Amino acid sequence: MPIKREKPKERFSYDPKKVIKKLEDLGKEILELVREGRNPFIDIPTRGLSNVYFDERSRLIKMGNKLSRRYFLNVAHARKFMQTLLIAAYVKRLVSEGKHASLREAYYANKHSLAGSKENTFESQSESDPIIEDLERTLGVLREEMHLTADRRGYVYGDLTIRDGEDEFNCSKLGMGGWAVPGTVEHLEFVNINADYVLVVETAAMADRLIEEKYPKKEKAIIIATQGQASRGVRRLIHRLHYEEGLPIIVFTDGDPYGWYIYSTIKQGSINLAYLSEKLATPEAKFVGMTMDDVEKYDLRNVTEKLKGIPPNKRGGPSGDYKRIIEEMNYPWFKTKEWQRQLKLALKWGVRIEQQALANKSLEFVAKKYLPEKIAKEELLP
Amino acid sequence: MPIKREKPKERFSYDPKKVIKKLEDLGKEILELVREGRNPFIDIPTRGLSNVYFDERSRLIKMGNKLSRRYFLNVAHARKFMQTLLIAAYVKRLVSEGKHASLREAYYANKHSLAGSKENTFESQSESDPIIEDLERTLGVLREEMHLTADRRGYVYGDLTIRDGEDEFNCSKLGMGGWAVPGTVEHLEFVNINADYVLVVETAAMADRLIEEKYPKKEKAIIIATQGQASRGVRRLIHRLHYEEGLPIIVFTDGDPYGWYIYSTIKQGSINLAYLSEKLATPEAKFVGMTMDDVEKYDLRNVTEKLKGIPPNKRGGPSGDYKRIIEEMNYPWFKTKEWQRQLKLALKWGVRIEQQALANKSLEFVAKKYLPEKIAKEELLP
Repeated sequence: MPIKREKPKERFSYDPKKVIKKLEDLGKEILELVREGRNPFIDIPTRGLSNVYFDERSRLIKMGNKLSRRYFLNVAHARKFMQTLLIAAYVKRLVSEGKHASLREAYYANKHSLAGSKENTFESQSESDPIIEDLERTLGVLREEMHLTADRRGYVYGDLTIRDGEDEFNCSKLGMGGWAVPGTVEHLEFVNINADYVLVVETAAMADRLIEEKYPKKEKAIIIATQGQASRGVRRLIHRLHYEEGLPIIVFTDGDPYGWYIYSTIKQGSINLAYLSEKLATPEAKFVGMTMDDVEKYDLRNVTEKLKGIPPNKRGGPSGDYKRIIEEMNYPWFKTKEWQRQLKLALKWGVRIEQQALANKSLEFVAKKYLPEKIAKEELLP
Repeated sequence: MPIKREKPKERFSYDPKKVIKKLEDLGKEILELVREGRNPFIDIPTRGLSNVYFDERSRLIKMGNKLSRRYFLNVAHARKFMQTLLIAAYVKRLVSEGKHASLREAYYANKHSLAGSKENTFESQSESDPIIEDLERTLGVLREEMHLTADRRGYVYGDLTIRDGEDEFNCSKLGMGGWAVPGTVEHLEFVNINADYVLVVETAAMADRLIEEKYPKKEKAIIIATQGQASRGVRRLIHRLHYEEGLPIIVFTDGDPYGWYIYSTIKQGSINLAYLSEKLATPEAKFVGMTMDDVEKYDLRNVTEKLKGIPPNKRGGPSGDYKRIIEEMNYPWFKTKEWQRQLKLALKWGVRIEQQALANKSLEFVAKKYLPEKIAKEELLP
């Protein structure tokens, strides 16, 4: 069965009115408590590992249902309570006015001293960021839906026409550069797509190689370069292209613990952001390479690199790459026999293999043989 | 005198034929030596501080004229001689075929064992990168002109129409995303520009703020986000927009040693790449902020951050930010009284100020007041 675009599973759902409604409801509930003469509080889903689990059915890292109650009239809670309402009010202004702010701007914008005291509302961004996460968890909306933008990184190349406000452009007509993915992709509309799948690529150099080889046109693929760990904007874009547009997602990283971790985050979400998995992760994503089997099959032994750190059977071990691989072997989504095989081989041989090591064959090899063959034969890891 | 586009000083000069000619001449010279029965050699400008100076007239870090002779029949030179010719031959193929390779690909593509031995041509990229730099110095051409691409980072937003091969696009019609700057910008043609100047911005969050505030349209500016230290592609793009298109360059970074260093690199080049200053640097660039004077003028004292490290008069000092600032005070291009004043104030107050701290006034403040006022009044540092 060839890799083809499927039927969409989700609809474009961004709606600023819903976000404002949720914020207003939060405000009304607190006002109600004040009017009743009660101690105002907010119920916030508990953070941390104790409230996170891997849902086997949906194959997602999810948040549990433990709640922490944050009171206004409680010496230990009062400061955070005040901060939560400050940020909530700020977000309401942002969304109402159709403006966006970075996390850092949100911190600076809300930092001031409280009237009649030397106390500041926020002392550092490490105080405002967790409050924003609390609001995400409490309201069940993405930071991006609250118009708070994440750091941006990554670009797109392929036959995908996007509308952003008054602008409409095709991501295969922007030269070698491609389109830079903004911090927030909620509001983007996909006008037209002429592609069979999305190929997510770890390194810019490899994405540029594929663009130069005209891979996106020949193979009808949209290329998304993550440039390292995928930014939230990129992860959200991948999610939307899969669920709203039915595009299969194929991930291509270095064959090392960091590359596999990048795949893992795109596929299953991360523990930090467990409460967002349903909107950020794409459990149906598949992995094309690099694998340890590639090293044998394509005779790449002499362009592997040694794993960093100490192996498990040596004194001081496991550390570095070895430790990371052993951790990954315990991730529920790497418990499949295919992944266990790859991870064990890496430990056994003590090597890693980079995407760009394929250049040892020829510059064209990756675009003309490696990827098309593996994808056509569906030699993909789950 | 308002900031306006000036008359161009340079012409579009990329010519692959010239690069090939230089490579062929190098090969012919060596062949000639072999035919004469002499020991083949290559003269390579010496690397390192001893062969670098600051040219007061052009205001550029430049390379001196010391040469090192690399012989084939010399046990200490033979390996590097072989590597130099391997890379030169590889580059000739790349340029002839119109292909590009990353530094990493160039390493992998040229790594193989020598016939009849266990010796590898290259053991790691740390062997091939310096050879590429040697070739740049020897031939007087940029790595990018040899089709070896640097890591890419940064994006452009503004009324600038670019042609890249068959594609032609306007960088103000790509939504909030903007155009991702590729590793190599040599081949790009600027078809049409409707702007008075280029504003180079350190952080993506600030660039996005200005885009959201429609600053590029209102102020007729092209925004280039460097996303940290400017990549070679971005520095080359800035250089080309200034010299070939006459656009004044104004740099906007955080008010801290790292931000000032970013400015310094755009303006004067770096010691590592002294041999490329003439093609990568833009000594006419000016600096709009953040400055220590801004802290006073715009009443930003309560959103400054403390400098990291130990001040010069304390035990163990100077270290961290303090050390960095003292180093910068000794850069020839920071010897002006304006810069000395800013750097001294930073040391005295022990603070740094971020671009995004301006959000403490209002989100619009930077776009509606801070930048337009400073630029109109030419309150710029040299």
